[in-house]
Amino acid sequence: MNKFGRLFSVTIFGESHGTGVGIVIDGVPPGISLVPEDFREDMARRRSGAKGTTLRSEPDVPEILSGVFKDKTTGAPLTILVENTNVRSGDYDRQIEIPRPGHADFVAMKKYKGFSDYRGGGHFSGRLTAALVAAGVIAKKILTGVEIRASLTEAGGSADIKTVVQKAVAEKDSIGGIVECRVNGLPAGLGEPFFDSAESLLSHAVFSIPAVKGIEFGAGFAAAKMKGSEHNDPIVDGTGKTATNHAGGINGGITNSNELVFRIVVKPASSIGKTQHTLNVKTDKTEDLLVEGRHDACIALRVPPILEAVTAITLADLWLISKAYKE
Amino acid sequence: MNKFGRLFSVTIFGESHGTGVGIVIDGVPPGISLVPEDFREDMARRRSGAKGTTLRSEPDVPEILSGVFKDKTTGAPLTILVENTNVRSGDYDRQIEIPRPGHADFVAMKKYKGFSDYRGGGHFSGRLTAALVAAGVIAKKILTGVEIRASLTEAGGSADIKTVVQKAVAEKDSIGGIVECRVNGLPAGLGEPFFDSAESLLSHAVFSIPAVKGIEFGAGFAAAKMKGSEHNDPIVDGTGKTATNHAGGINGGITNSNELVFRIVVKPASSIGKTQHTLNVKTDKTEDLLVEGRHDACIALRVPPILEAVTAITLADLWLISKAYKE
Amino acid sequence: MNKFGRLFSVTIFGESHGTGVGIVIDGVPPGISLVPEDFREDMARRRSGAKGTTLRSEPDVPEILSGVFKDKTTGAPLTILVENTNVRSGDYDRQIEIPRPGHADFVAMKKYKGFSDYRGGGHFSGRLTAALVAAGVIAKKILTGVEIRASLTEAGGSADIKTVVQKAVAEKDSIGGIVECRVNGLPAGLGEPFFDSAESLLSHAVFSIPAVKGIEFGAGFAAAKMKGSEHNDPIVDGTGKTATNHAGGINGGITNSNELVFRIVVKPASSIGKTQHTLNVKTDKTEDLLVEGRHDACIALRVPPILEAVTAITLADLWLISKAYKE
Amino acid sequence: MNKFGRLFSVTIFGESHGTGVGIVIDGVPPGISLVPEDFREDMARRRSGAKGTTLRSEPDVPEILSGVFKDKTTGAPLTILVENTNVRSGDYDRQIEIPRPGHADFVAMKKYKGFSDYRGGGHFSGRLTAALVAAGVIAKKILTGVEIRASLTEAGGSADIKTVVQKAVAEKDSIGGIVECRVNGLPAGLGEPFFDSAESLLSHAVFSIPAVKGIEFGAGFAAAKMKGSEHNDPIVDGTGKTATNHAGGINGGITNSNELVFRIVVKPASSIGKTQHTLNVKTDKTEDLLVEGRHDACIALRVPPILEAVTAITLADLWLISKAYKE
Repeated sequence: MNKFGRLFSVTIFGESHGTGVGIVIDGVPPGISLVPEDFREDMARRRSGAKGTTLRSEPDVPEILSGVFKDKTTGAPLTILVENTNVRSGDYDRQIEIPRPGHADFVAMKKYKGFSDYRGGGHFSGRLTAALVAAGVIAKKILTGVEIRASLTEAGGSADIKTVVQKAVAEKDSIGGIVECRVNGLPAGLGEPFFDSAESLLSHAVFSIPAVKGIEFGAGFAAAKMKGSEHNDPIVDGTGKTATNHAGGINGGITNSNELVFRIVVKPASSIGKTQHTLNVKTDKTEDLLVEGRHDACIALRVPPILEAVTAITLADLWLISKAYKE
Repeated sequence: MNKFGRLFSVTIFGESHGTGVGIVIDGVPPGISLVPEDFREDMARRRSGAKGTTLRSEPDVPEILSGVFKDKTTGAPLTILVENTNVRSGDYDRQIEIPRPGHADFVAMKKYKGFSDYRGGGHFSGRLTAALVAAGVIAKKILTGVEIRASLTEAGGSADIKTVVQKAVAEKDSIGGIVECRVNGLPAGLGEPFFDSAESLLSHAVFSIPAVKGIEFGAGFAAAKMKGSEHNDPIVDGTGKTATNHAGGINGGITNSNELVFRIVVKPASSIGKTQHTLNVKTDKTEDLLVEGRHDACIALRVPPILEAVTAITLADLWLISKAYKE
Repeated sequence: MNKFGRLFSVTIFGESHGTGVGIVIDGVPPGISLVPEDFREDMARRRSGAKGTTLRSEPDVPEILSGVFKDKTTGAPLTILVENTNVRSGDYDRQIEIPRPGHADFVAMKKYKGFSDYRGGGHFSGRLTAALVAAGVIAKKILTGVEIRASLTEAGGSADIKTVVQKAVAEKDSIGGIVECRVNGLPAGLGEPFFDSAESLLSHAVFSIPAVKGIEFGAGFAAAKMKGSEHNDPIVDGTGKTATNHAGGINGGITNSNELVFRIVVKPASSIGKTQHTLNVKTDKTEDLLVEGRHDACIALRVPPILEAVTAITLADLWLISKAYKE
Repeated sequence: MNKFGRLFSVTIFGESHGTGVGIVIDGVPPGISLVPEDFREDMARRRSGAKGTTLRSEPDVPEILSGVFKDKTTGAPLTILVENTNVRSGDYDRQIEIPRPGHADFVAMKKYKGFSDYRGGGHFSGRLTAALVAAGVIAKKILTGVEIRASLTEAGGSADIKTVVQKAVAEKDSIGGIVECRVNGLPAGLGEPFFDSAESLLSHAVFSIPAVKGIEFGAGFAAAKMKGSEHNDPIVDGTGKTATNHAGGINGGITNSNELVFRIVVKPASSIGKTQHTLNVKTDKTEDLLVEGRHDACIALRVPPILEAVTAITLADLWLISKAYKE
């Protein structure tokens, strides 16, 4: 479904080539200051014309449809709409006949019985992450004293990101990457076992970002090769601070007040400028496909602000739930 | 919270050293045959006395408290209780004073203000996975024609699992591992974007298994080093079959009818037979801690049937949701 | 929260004097035909300039922001926005000082700490029912073969509605009424006990309509004076048809294929053209208040299409859930 | 579904003639004192052998399966089981052939395809209210300073309840009644519009009590005959106290700090000792039916503690949600 969260709850909507993309945020505390400028930085980071991202550079100014009055949140649902202003009217009929390898084209056609909006990926488009980033701006404001920072730590297997992206652009190909997120200032106690562990909710939100195919917390997959005597983080003071942080700030699904650390893998963009061999579902024969139009050589470049946003959305929900059980 | 799922919805309860652990399954279709023997195999696999797991070998016979009549599910909530019969009455007061490194002890104390049942990990104990496995038996019955198989592919960094586990036992230490899950026979179309992608829901469920710290689908983290031209899986026929399966059977968050493949990392058990240096919260000084009692040298050995169970629980929910939209 | 429904799930937003009111409908089956004309009748019935309703007669043309492509639903969230075009810029500051008796003014101020949008009732305004009616149009399309009809059966204690409304207008007062809803063509089996009985969900939805203060199914409150031998409806054929219908079409919380019948009471509108004596929260003294502006002499006149809409929304959800358990 | 509530969330299970009935309560704050004696009064009130109720007088001692440690709630799910100890092994096969008029027998058979546990009503039995009452005991403990009192105000159309019940017993018939609930000490601000108004949630919970067919708040159905100038409750002081209470303590779906008042109608019990004419679904012919066994002449007599329980459960949820938005 298109809703996520129990108290701070977001409902997303929109398509790549429709009116726009948007999000309704339910459960926003009243009295939070909110002006258009607040969105600017994160929206710009996502849109950023960095080498390796597409040229579709809409102004992406979030319009507030409800929930704000006199520059303050009211407590009523806060709705944000980001209009699509730069939609190319391409030939999308080909997309129905030849579903692009690696895209949602084929499964969307199957699941929605041929009625899905296939233009530019429709509801599956990365365009929807603009709405996530906008919602993240509100979520971050709830998390007083918390700092969330995500960054691309490697792309195409290399830490020299600029070079590999340029190479991918030249080859008309795409590359994947690793994005790491670090959160500081979180209190101990966030996370609602058994099923709503902090890892469960964060990963739930993270896998809604298109192209994410893996996530690991703290030592992550490296823990498979570690011994307990190495992996266990000794507690060193009454705040719960640990000498090491192999747990990534979460024990038993609950934040432990140390830095929250996790990494995600972003697969290479499916849309590439190279010819691919795949099925024409109309003729039921394989043929060559060259996807025209804009391509992101490295979508992972755009992911950091999006990852921060879904992290903030998830933590804001846990934050409010936690408050319900305070004295 | 302790509930997971929209239509096939499970609510888990219980503690390691209380009456038992249990689960209420809401939304079970009526008329499914269910007899006690159905639980035997998966419960035994989880319990299995394999070298490297603890000696706590309760019979673990799930008792059905509701929802079954004349050996058939009724459509009413199906409740399963697995009693705790072999509970050692140890000295758990020390656990309050010296929270075990790597365990939930410290965060549970903080979050629940000192009132959590700390005996054997309480509600955070791996013991609760007995209830998950029992629920998985029901879920598997819903997934007609679907085969779910999980296996431990490496432990302590080695594929020779027997050897490394023996070594860990000898060292009174613990080791982590990688468990892979493969699901065959799934139809295309399971998964409910935007937020309830198949990856989102599976990872949500998977991270509720204690000790899991990472998950990856298909090529997973290796995708970070791949190019789009390599990673994209060309579709080869009208069923959606692809020549390769880097996507792990999921595109755009929706199953594509190919094998569903994902891997999780299980960290080494926190409980080890070695002395560890950590904080005494009562004296506020660090000291040496030796955790007495049973230890799992490699908890990853137990995880395959648990992973199958949460996978089945998640897919059964998506399966029922998908049916609501059939003609 | 502002969401209702498990599979057919609506999220409402907006304020009386903001940009507009809207609704996101998640879980709409793909392939349903939808054109702007489809909204016309129900929106007009709600708006209708019948004597006794206010003069705010916005065109109320629902704009579809997402989820429809080539005049068919896509399966993605369907978002509808009804803009506010005829907003009077009155003096609402008085509303903060002297909360109107019978309105949400006082509790909204308390709950949202003074930050709620108080203009025209803000998020509490009857204006939001425009979004409900629009969503109802979609819901009705899902309920194949089902006919939902609500009508005002009495107002101000009289069946001669025209007369009592004219009298109320003349007196600058308001009157309440009873609205009855009858649904034909429903299959047996809708309703999800224990907590989601058909009555539970219908009443949940119905009490979200502003000014509703009671609901009764079938014989309703009259059943308090009946004997079991009178109230029990004898079944007369294998379809479940009963000789009488005191149950109102629901047994044990589940529809029984007979006509679904229920009635609601709509209290008289709080806004009246008469002077009222109430508290000035600023001075903390009582004083006389005359609420200026548009008044509905009988808001119950507008309620039938709104009641049909929430009924359809609720039943569409149960309809889809029911399909998940079909063979 | 069998779950209700967002933060204080209950999941109910069990059948009339199975192992027992039970409830899992998720979201209980830690540290609440709980001993077996706490259940005694409300369980006894429900069970009470008052004239007019059945003789099935099980001790009804709630057994706590999880969530309590050292007589204090732990914060983990609190599970209560009330065993069925006095189950008559009657001839229930007749119930399949001749569904009892007014009961859930027919719809349960249809909905659950013949697999429901039909003995004594199975999951539809009033027996499940024992679990509700037990959960209500916990809920009441959360609502500090709040007093909830329900009472039977009339039965069979008369305030002289004893007399009419005796008459019904003598006639082997059953009678309905009106139960009123009054809640004092509630703060202003409980209720979560748009869809989770206090009336919406209370009615949702109330209609899960078997035999309830109507609910009204404050003036209720009488409001249909009132004028706005009469119905509006003038605020008299800064706490929100009103001179009258026609709103029943709720404005705009939110509690206003005045007494919460609502009434429900309980239909006469369907099970009566008189011969009824209805359908034999096996022969498809109508015939006479005499339901043997225990009968409640006036089930409304048992309802007050049950109504208090669901009221407490609902308000405890709103109470916790409200705390999440406190400073």
